[in-house]
Amino acid sequence: MSSEISIADKQMARQNGIVQPLLTDLYQITMAYAYWKSGKVNDVAVFDLFFRTNPFQGEFTIFAGLEECMKFLENFHYSNSDIKYLKQTLPENIEPEFYLYLKELTCKDIIVSAIEEGSVVFPRVPLLRVEGPLIVAQLLETTLLTLVNFASLMATNAARYRMVAGKNVSLLEFGLRRAQGPDGGLSASKYAYIGGFDGTSNVLAGKMFNIPVKGTHAHSFVTSFSTLDDIHRVTLTHAQTREPCNLLESAMEWRSRVSTVIDVSTEESSDGELAALISYAIAFPTGFLALVDTYDVKRYNFQGLTSRHRQRITNGHSGYNSNCGTNGTIVQIAPTIHSTYGSSTVERTLRSGLLNFCAVALALNDCGYRAVGIRIDSGDLAYLSVLARETFEKVGETFNVPWFAKLTIVASNDINEETILSLNEQGHKIDCFGIGTHLVTCQRQPALGCVYKLVEINGQPRIKLSQDVGKVTIPGHKEAYRLFGADGHALIDLLQRSSEPAPVVGQKVLCRHPFQESKRAYVIPSYVEHLYKICWKDGRVCTAPKPLSKVRERVQSSLRTLRQDIKRNLNPTPYKVAVSDDLYNFIHDLWLQNAPIGELS
Amino acid sequence: MSSEISIADKQMARQNGIVQPLLTDLYQITMAYAYWKSGKVNDVAVFDLFFRTNPFQGEFTIFAGLEECMKFLENFHYSNSDIKYLKQTLPENIEPEFYLYLKELTCKDIIVSAIEEGSVVFPRVPLLRVEGPLIVAQLLETTLLTLVNFASLMATNAARYRMVAGKNVSLLEFGLRRAQGPDGGLSASKYAYIGGFDGTSNVLAGKMFNIPVKGTHAHSFVTSFSTLDDIHRVTLTHAQTREPCNLLESAMEWRSRVSTVIDVSTEESSDGELAALISYAIAFPTGFLALVDTYDVKRYNFQGLTSRHRQRITNGHSGYNSNCGTNGTIVQIAPTIHSTYGSSTVERTLRSGLLNFCAVALALNDCGYRAVGIRIDSGDLAYLSVLARETFEKVGETFNVPWFAKLTIVASNDINEETILSLNEQGHKIDCFGIGTHLVTCQRQPALGCVYKLVEINGQPRIKLSQDVGKVTIPGHKEAYRLFGADGHALIDLLQRSSEPAPVVGQKVLCRHPFQESKRAYVIPSYVEHLYKICWKDGRVCTAPKPLSKVRERVQSSLRTLRQDIKRNLNPTPYKVAVSDDLYNFIHDLWLQNAPIGELS
Repeated sequence: MSSEISIADKQMARQNGIVQPLLTDLYQITMAYAYWKSGKVNDVAVFDLFFRTNPFQGEFTIFAGLEECMKFLENFHYSNSDIKYLKQTLPENIEPEFYLYLKELTCKDIIVSAIEEGSVVFPRVPLLRVEGPLIVAQLLETTLLTLVNFASLMATNAARYRMVAGKNVSLLEFGLRRAQGPDGGLSASKYAYIGGFDGTSNVLAGKMFNIPVKGTHAHSFVTSFSTLDDIHRVTLTHAQTREPCNLLESAMEWRSRVSTVIDVSTEESSDGELAALISYAIAFPTGFLALVDTYDVKRYNFQGLTSRHRQRITNGHSGYNSNCGTNGTIVQIAPTIHSTYGSSTVERTLRSGLLNFCAVALALNDCGYRAVGIRIDSGDLAYLSVLARETFEKVGETFNVPWFAKLTIVASNDINEETILSLNEQGHKIDCFGIGTHLVTCQRQPALGCVYKLVEINGQPRIKLSQDVGKVTIPGHKEAYRLFGADGHALIDLLQRSSEPAPVVGQKVLCRHPFQESKRAYVIPSYVEHLYKICWKDGRVCTAPKPLSKVRERVQSSLRTLRQDIKRNLNPTPYKVAVSDDLYNFIHDLWLQNAPIGELS
Repeated sequence: MSSEISIADKQMARQNGIVQPLLTDLYQITMAYAYWKSGKVNDVAVFDLFFRTNPFQGEFTIFAGLEECMKFLENFHYSNSDIKYLKQTLPENIEPEFYLYLKELTCKDIIVSAIEEGSVVFPRVPLLRVEGPLIVAQLLETTLLTLVNFASLMATNAARYRMVAGKNVSLLEFGLRRAQGPDGGLSASKYAYIGGFDGTSNVLAGKMFNIPVKGTHAHSFVTSFSTLDDIHRVTLTHAQTREPCNLLESAMEWRSRVSTVIDVSTEESSDGELAALISYAIAFPTGFLALVDTYDVKRYNFQGLTSRHRQRITNGHSGYNSNCGTNGTIVQIAPTIHSTYGSSTVERTLRSGLLNFCAVALALNDCGYRAVGIRIDSGDLAYLSVLARETFEKVGETFNVPWFAKLTIVASNDINEETILSLNEQGHKIDCFGIGTHLVTCQRQPALGCVYKLVEINGQPRIKLSQDVGKVTIPGHKEAYRLFGADGHALIDLLQRSSEPAPVVGQKVLCRHPFQESKRAYVIPSYVEHLYKICWKDGRVCTAPKPLSKVRERVQSSLRTLRQDIKRNLNPTPYKVAVSDDLYNFIHDLWLQNAPIGELS
């Protein structure tokens, strides 16, 4: 086990090779020089890292990326080649002593306090508070933002998918091929898992982060087989008896029997597909999960065919009843099936796939193995999943294979939060969603807007004023508390000046809106959580390393403290973030001191 | 120089540590096993990598990522720890020989043909054609897609920004902090440069890819200074005479002189800001580019102030003429300025910043240095840039400093393609845009949908049918040609079966729409470009390595071959992609062979 960890560590180190002091904006380094040159080497600053708006039009965010920030601080060091590069890049007249200063720079005098990774967090409440030498704290800005922004965005996105999917559905992340770069894919896998996904298709993410990996086969696997002759191996050893079973023979027989039960003729199913599924089942008898929609040829657009071809379709088939839409699309309607199990007919989309799957699954069953299920990657997922479930129930009942009714149905194909909500409304029988592009690129909002603002220097508060009141920063060294009600729900996040005493359980606290004078509330907390823990001090990480699974649990337990109306998808209620009366007055006095006074004539 | 290259190479290797065979979807490996187990080890396949729709509602795409794909093939190798991980992850009953097979696997029998990196490319025309052992070619799918998708998306996005900005404006990529992960940021910097950006703020990208890096200072630098006492150093050595200059004294004097010219009183400017700018100028006398909008306090929202505060503003200032909007917003109107240089007044946003900047720039000038310019990061960028330009012209004329009129004006703040188009319409005087979030996350469409489809196996063509004609693949081993007209513009891309002779200059070629029978055209090319070059064969990269700057040039030269109406932002004309008559018939015959025939009763 220890060797495995060291392998994972090496992989991490390779990945983290790019998370280094030069992974920053040049202006951090030019500012560092200007500070250094103007004698501000011993200035001490406090920066807050926070965001102003929750992503995805929601009212909560999941904080993630802290562990990566800690690794960055641990490894913060300008290499000789970094210094050499900077010397080439910065103007020639930079004093050489500055490079010596940079070379020796570490984060040993920095103190970072942070909210626990995986917690729900809200606008304006700093996620990280960074204190220490102005120059060093400034140099950390870009990298910390990079590490927190995407991690938190992804974890939040994943948590939202988890909420709409519900607890009983599995969620798999399938996004690597569409991710923003190789590491975009790895980060997506990691933070999707933290946010509540159950696994990923990304093997390297599985290896590096110990996340369950999942995956079966693609359409290309099915299309690589044309006929039953493409099966090179037909024998499987029985799971218990160890006798050889001929899976091809058995599947052919089952296909014939099942075809009468689900009213699909064996001629309507593809032999190439059957060959592919048999081959796959022989390779993975204990993990047979098959893609069943490769032959989805339900409709033809006649505009897409030559007249010669059109003739070949429309002629020679007595009883062909063209069903012409206004756009020239002709629906090729299958023979009317008087279903023996309810009113639904098996859509052509799954006619071939479902029949072949059932045949192979029943053949496997005879050989002592239980199939896992199917994946549907196109079409009307709600309808097709219901159809597949009905088929499995019917087949299971007819042939007395009760577990057949419980086969897993996986759905993929461009799924997003809204798709799941819509499927929920329509009713579906999907057990697992495989989600790619929309999840990993956070298509609905591909960036979180965390900022890093100077709030104190040499003990003096700093306020950043703006035309836009939403952009005014809350000055000074602050603490943050979460106040809980008697029912365990979080009521409000309260920012105070660090000099103030912490709120006390059972005692009334005046909570004020930071900018709207009349918005005030007394809160009597049943429980008070101090949100900040020092996680970096004296050049060391102060908190125990936490496995991903624990951070993942934290996400769910933290979300449970939020009222449902704050978490809901449509028109969620904003969670309240307040300041103490003391901090309120402090902000507004400082504001006036700093704002120039206009004159009107 | 060689040592620098080796450093860059090492950095690259570190970054590329994650681009390895396990950076893939698990199903590639399970399929590999199923192929292996079913005796398909010697099957030979052809896969096409292509996309179906251009991104950003445009009609072209820039192909990028090829060099990364080649590095991936070069380093393709399962390590012992990879094999160990796979053994833990795949089912127990996998035959051990499969792992030995994987361990020995390389890309030596793979042939990759590709379009030149940096070329404009179009839907359906394969960017890469991958031929070789089915199992190996299948195992490359996900990683090749990951490497091409984001690279091409970013390069295309950047090229679009370049087109709307025009040739004479500089474009800088500032997106690292909002990118999708550290490598998302690095990839963004690299491919933004390829797409036509002039530089990046990302220092590591500069170091690794030899991209110009740019950056000056942030608002926090300005707010870290409160008063003139915060300046610890006031002396600068004259550029020519080497005499000491007192920059503070000189700037104070200039501030007073400039204030009368631009009608801003020195009291309206912030001393903290002046202190910051002087300190910055002393550090970077040859690179003085200053952020001038830190003190942007033009409007107050009175709802955001207590009544006590409101009183302090409204009382005691005779002549205060409240200008109350319906929402309670009061515009703090500055004293009416009867501008001496046209009708514009200096907006409060830049009142402090412009005055302080001019003062320091003129002080620098006395000391033998030329300031570079300003950055504006908020407000009405068109208006403020015009105002700044007028100010510079006026000041330059008044004090006989002619180069002042040509100072650089950089604009940033959430800029996207539409912002630039709108600024162009309004008229602006911006020389350089710094672009972050929208560029690097490709906010308008954060993923390109490249796919990787099996088109031939063991010499037999494969067609993937679909309900959606747009998703039908073009089968077989193909070549692609670009046919050019006499004026040098690209007319059409033509796909042919590889067995067909190439189109000949001056000879009529029948070009057909792949799916619409009646859409045909004869084209007489004046020049024919064979789009594919073999770039990987016999286990080696076959094309000479190309510096980024050459790929960047290729983007612009390739874009020049496109007619303007194809490139325009609004309702661009689609570029035509056609198939030969032979390929057309081949597709449609195969389609009919593979599509099941429905029956109607």
